[in-house]
Amino acid sequence: MDAAELDAADPLAPARARFVLPDGVIYLDGNSLGALPGPVADRLRDVVTRQWGRDLVRGWNDDGWWAAPERIGDRVGTLIGAAPGQTVAGDSTSVQLFNALTAAVRLQESREAGRDGVIVTDAGQFPTDGYLADSVGRLLGREVVRTPDPYAALRRGDVAVLAWSTVDFRTGQLWDTGGLTRAAHDAGAVVVWDLCHAVGAMPLHLDRDDVDLAVGCTYKFLSGGPGSPAFIYVARRHQDRLELPLTGWNGHAQPFAMEPGYQAAPGIARGRIGTPPMLSMLALDAALDAFDGIDLAAVRAKSLRLGEFFIAGADEAGFEVITPRAPERRGSHVSLRHPDALPVMAALIEAGVIGDVRPPDVLRFGFNALYNSFGDLARALEVLGEVLASGRYAEARFQVRPTVT
Amino acid sequence: MDAAELDAADPLAPARARFVLPDGVIYLDGNSLGALPGPVADRLRDVVTRQWGRDLVRGWNDDGWWAAPERIGDRVGTLIGAAPGQTVAGDSTSVQLFNALTAAVRLQESREAGRDGVIVTDAGQFPTDGYLADSVGRLLGREVVRTPDPYAALRRGDVAVLAWSTVDFRTGQLWDTGGLTRAAHDAGAVVVWDLCHAVGAMPLHLDRDDVDLAVGCTYKFLSGGPGSPAFIYVARRHQDRLELPLTGWNGHAQPFAMEPGYQAAPGIARGRIGTPPMLSMLALDAALDAFDGIDLAAVRAKSLRLGEFFIAGADEAGFEVITPRAPERRGSHVSLRHPDALPVMAALIEAGVIGDVRPPDVLRFGFNALYNSFGDLARALEVLGEVLASGRYAEARFQVRPTVT
Repeated sequence: MDAAELDAADPLAPARARFVLPDGVIYLDGNSLGALPGPVADRLRDVVTRQWGRDLVRGWNDDGWWAAPERIGDRVGTLIGAAPGQTVAGDSTSVQLFNALTAAVRLQESREAGRDGVIVTDAGQFPTDGYLADSVGRLLGREVVRTPDPYAALRRGDVAVLAWSTVDFRTGQLWDTGGLTRAAHDAGAVVVWDLCHAVGAMPLHLDRDDVDLAVGCTYKFLSGGPGSPAFIYVARRHQDRLELPLTGWNGHAQPFAMEPGYQAAPGIARGRIGTPPMLSMLALDAALDAFDGIDLAAVRAKSLRLGEFFIAGADEAGFEVITPRAPERRGSHVSLRHPDALPVMAALIEAGVIGDVRPPDVLRFGFNALYNSFGDLARALEVLGEVLASGRYAEARFQVRPTVT
Repeated sequence: MDAAELDAADPLAPARARFVLPDGVIYLDGNSLGALPGPVADRLRDVVTRQWGRDLVRGWNDDGWWAAPERIGDRVGTLIGAAPGQTVAGDSTSVQLFNALTAAVRLQESREAGRDGVIVTDAGQFPTDGYLADSVGRLLGREVVRTPDPYAALRRGDVAVLAWSTVDFRTGQLWDTGGLTRAAHDAGAVVVWDLCHAVGAMPLHLDRDDVDLAVGCTYKFLSGGPGSPAFIYVARRHQDRLELPLTGWNGHAQPFAMEPGYQAAPGIARGRIGTPPMLSMLALDAALDAFDGIDLAAVRAKSLRLGEFFIAGADEAGFEVITPRAPERRGSHVSLRHPDALPVMAALIEAGVIGDVRPPDVLRFGFNALYNSFGDLARALEVLGEVLASGRYAEARFQVRPTVT
């Protein structure tokens, strides 16, 4: 089937109308920053002018600001297979990772007295995960082991925490959350999943898979806006003995008693830290409306078809595809290797096709099944072909590295 | 002079027009959440619809999102006596405190080999400061000492870090930043100031006072919006050896090189953590316009006069004023003790006068010299008198404790 036929048969095609997409742009970077969902602008205006402007400090009660992190956390929970009361929104993924990793080491420590195990993390994962693991390792006196093979690492027998990314940010490789969690548990380790490149792109089953802790961002496939709050998931069985290091007053059992000593709130509320950035938080809330009534199985099915379609085109054009081809090992972006990745992407963006680059030589194209069409991908492949065939990308103006790519 | 005369003579009176204040409300809780500055709503709409909606991920470069934390940090810097390049905006005060306290202990450790000193903090300060000090103490194996008398504590001779609040959130007591910093340095300690209840209400002189580290929030006197990003100040002399524990990728020397190991950015950029909540960040940016051309000495002068005016009225009404009367020891809010503080404030709010309560028995009234008038205060005192005289506050509907007060 060609792109037009695939689009005609796409049950998710109507979801595109839930987003505001600019004319003349094919947007394949929703895995970095998702497109703007329709309801956000008006909702945020109401938050600013009516809630903040008129209700002032009363907004914390009257407009539900105080409860927003748990309420929005639960909305995210429905997209990751988490029953209510286990997910809370706030802070950045980096901050959540620090909190989760520290708590995970302590959790494992408390149940395996005398063990002094290592933190195992993904050699190819997003850098911040490794940086935070190193920082936590330094503070708690634990070695950090980076490996491409978590199953082999678990056989060391001294793994306290396995911190892994569901989808590799560079290659798009998808890991088996359930299988790897089981293997970690069999080895006596606590798992911390980084869901950044998976949440919103596929069904996840954190409860079913017996995951301990997870974090994720909301500005990629969830389209929550630039730097929208991250989230943390804490399995209910761990909540009441979880000792998070970021003991901000929002996570206190009685935050308004203003007590001198910290007593963590029962339940997921202890995952709260300081006062959350409410405008970004409520923009995320509005953005999540884009998922109302959407079946994540359908999202995943379309995402895989989009990936297949793109890979077929990339194969035809002679690209080296570094993303796994097997559907069960593939997330929702496809990466191509090209020695001139940076200028090629710069020329592509100038021509209206937005993807991104990961150093040194990876062209990355993300597919959001809610708003990307097969037609988008066909046109992107066509423009990519033109950019390469013309050699235009070699022009000087494309050699400049932007701050952010 | 009566309120009308004082208002007529107020050089800051025109600044009130920079804010959107609802009719029928006297707002004396800007020390909890500042009122809405005029430019925010339209600016944020542009950020959402044009920058995010149209520019999409290109906003990080084209709309200056990437540079926003340092740029906005420098704007805050002008209000705290910090030369450019020492202040960065982001995260919550709690997160910034954790980062600053940990780094402060390490800083002191690195220069005083073999010392294993304590963290001294304010017994009466905002709880999150104590909670985070405890958490850092636990991670780094340092005792935390809470004291009402920092000068006495410094005489212990084993103080690694003095973490203190410029203005006490409960009583409104103002501390001498310069004097206490000098005393701490004489004792070999590193200082971390919490500026939450001072920034925007008075001139601060962090560079002149030789402060080491400081954090603060922007949603009180800076009116940045609910949960708007906090900031951290790091004196230039410490920056390049500061070892912050929250090693998020935004603070890396080459964030887009995606290197596996963390190398802190030179300068204040290392104070960045994860991807910042850009909508809240840019709302703060717009809000700071309210301070354009404003002389903080004039703000302080009016704030003190507002305080005097209010204290005089409270004295007349027979209240116990727990805020210090000496101008040099008084911040920008005044606290009254009343055994029925909670229902009294509930009744007051119903009558259109918004202050807040701090447990167990403190009525708190904050004065923002940019938008509060002497007329506001006269009316607030009048309503307070009515509420008390009528005994109305004893009615059942005022006994219910809201989630947030």
